[in-house]
Amino acid sequence: MTSLIGIDLGGTKTVIVLTQPDGSIRRAERFSTDPSGDPKKDLQNLATRLGDVIGDEHIQAIGVAAPGPLHPEQGIVFNAPNLPGWQCVEIGAYLQTTFGAPVYLENDANAAALAEWHFGAGRGSNNMALLTMSTGVGGGLILNGSLYRGQRCSAGELGHLPVEWNGDLCGCGQRGCLEAYVGGASLRRRLQSLTPDASAVLALAGDRGAITPEHLVRAAHDGDAFALEEMQRFVEYLGRAIVHLVFAFAPERVVLGTIACAAGESLCFAPLRDLVRPRVWPHLWEQLSILPAALGRSLPEKSAAAVAKSAAEKFL
Amino acid sequence: MTSLIGIDLGGTKTVIVLTQPDGSIRRAERFSTDPSGDPKKDLQNLATRLGDVIGDEHIQAIGVAAPGPLHPEQGIVFNAPNLPGWQCVEIGAYLQTTFGAPVYLENDANAAALAEWHFGAGRGSNNMALLTMSTGVGGGLILNGSLYRGQRCSAGELGHLPVEWNGDLCGCGQRGCLEAYVGGASLRRRLQSLTPDASAVLALAGDRGAITPEHLVRAAHDGDAFALEEMQRFVEYLGRAIVHLVFAFAPERVVLGTIACAAGESLCFAPLRDLVRPRVWPHLWEQLSILPAALGRSLPEKSAAAVAKSAAEKFL
Repeated sequence: MTSLIGIDLGGTKTVIVLTQPDGSIRRAERFSTDPSGDPKKDLQNLATRLGDVIGDEHIQAIGVAAPGPLHPEQGIVFNAPNLPGWQCVEIGAYLQTTFGAPVYLENDANAAALAEWHFGAGRGSNNMALLTMSTGVGGGLILNGSLYRGQRCSAGELGHLPVEWNGDLCGCGQRGCLEAYVGGASLRRRLQSLTPDASAVLALAGDRGAITPEHLVRAAHDGDAFALEEMQRFVEYLGRAIVHLVFAFAPERVVLGTIACAAGESLCFAPLRDLVRPRVWPHLWEQLSILPAALGRSLPEKSAAAVAKSAAEKFL
Repeated sequence: MTSLIGIDLGGTKTVIVLTQPDGSIRRAERFSTDPSGDPKKDLQNLATRLGDVIGDEHIQAIGVAAPGPLHPEQGIVFNAPNLPGWQCVEIGAYLQTTFGAPVYLENDANAAALAEWHFGAGRGSNNMALLTMSTGVGGGLILNGSLYRGQRCSAGELGHLPVEWNGDLCGCGQRGCLEAYVGGASLRRRLQSLTPDASAVLALAGDRGAITPEHLVRAAHDGDAFALEEMQRFVEYLGRAIVHLVFAFAPERVVLGTIACAAGESLCFAPLRDLVRPRVWPHLWEQLSILPAALGRSLPEKSAAAVAKSAAEKFL
């Protein structure tokens, strides 16, 4: 039996799965990442957990979904914004030395795209885009039936498609990026400063500083006027980015994560389709489905399983 | 010896080449298309010319670069705007019956991208985008070392990336497309209506109705103020589209055709690089070259050779 390890390394939570090449999960462990500020210590903690999951199995390959720019084959995480101190961390070499199996790294948004494609809303499609839509907006492109990594694995930064040239400042330093309009962090800042006193968004949050996009979505579902306007804006910018994707690569599916899923059919997907349909050519529209991500809370496990699969394809 | 036929079927000119699988051209014929309005007659004329080129060679496969939406394997041109009467023309079946060789169709912009990639400015790259920049703006994407056709071969419509949401009306019926700003036909209309009486653009053309983008480029090279402003606008919109391509596909090369080539380094490529560089992330910029197309007048022959190569890869 071929045993693989998949790791989804997040700033908050880490998931380790023991899988087979078809992606079926035999064991899974989820724990708080608790970054120490010292990558060496973080790696030792990870290795301890990993040892528990592996037990006496013989592992043939390890896949790691990690945040930030990285080198998949060299196994280096160049910079992980949510893991303090993580600059040029050679996680690949460390795990390979410790566990004797080759290691393949995948960007976390690309891993999520692979997960939705193998196991979720992208299943069976040949060309698909995923927008993760969480704190930031990550992207992943499945093209011609495989993950498109681009030059030095730097492609698919769909959160930074410019949807408003010279528009709002984005966390990345550029202006007008999609993420500056629909990313969770940007949305939160905007809502905390713009929500009117009378809006249900504020009532749900209790305190201005506690407002999150979830309060926006809940207030919009309740019919709050401010929240509905903000959701329209959210859909408008998302639609602009999707129109770009449709003309450039004619996808079968565009899959949207977290906030879009919470907003659901009535607040997000139906108005989004109404916006995109007249803005693309009929034959491009006919072949397109805009869908919510299907994996929900199981995304970290499935991402880990997906990168284990990538590692197996790479090394076995 | 393996003999292939490549055809570049244009609204004005048609080129037929007899090639080998490596793309080397043994014979070439270029002639006016002179569309009759009757596709049957047009196909018979094409077959006569084709017979002359083939002589007594045994042909193993035929590739055709054709305008408009088409089905590559079924060999149907659905609609060729510059060939009157061409609606659902079964050119593949006709040529296959007449010459006994399998036929593969490629969209003309995709054929141009293949040509620049095999023989021109894209040579040796793994990820490349071409913008044709003639009357309209065609696009082609080489991704992971092969032409990306997308769902039903409808991808790469880079001339219709929205560079100004709710912007100028495009010939395609949408608003704000790149083509509405930098396409030859749009530029010509704009120049004919906006060129000031004192501008060198008008002096060079002689008559307002005779102004073309070539006059714009020549007047800008001569330092005409209006022409220089218009070139800045041209570069600005082109830059916006390129920024999209960079974040989505992380290409090694972006290759620009016709009008951009005429404008050259000083009027187009240098200011375009200055515009794009600060608008993308450093690592994406470092791996990118923005280059003029290299094939110039030999593009039709090379496009024909490139689609002959595609046909060979498909059938041999």
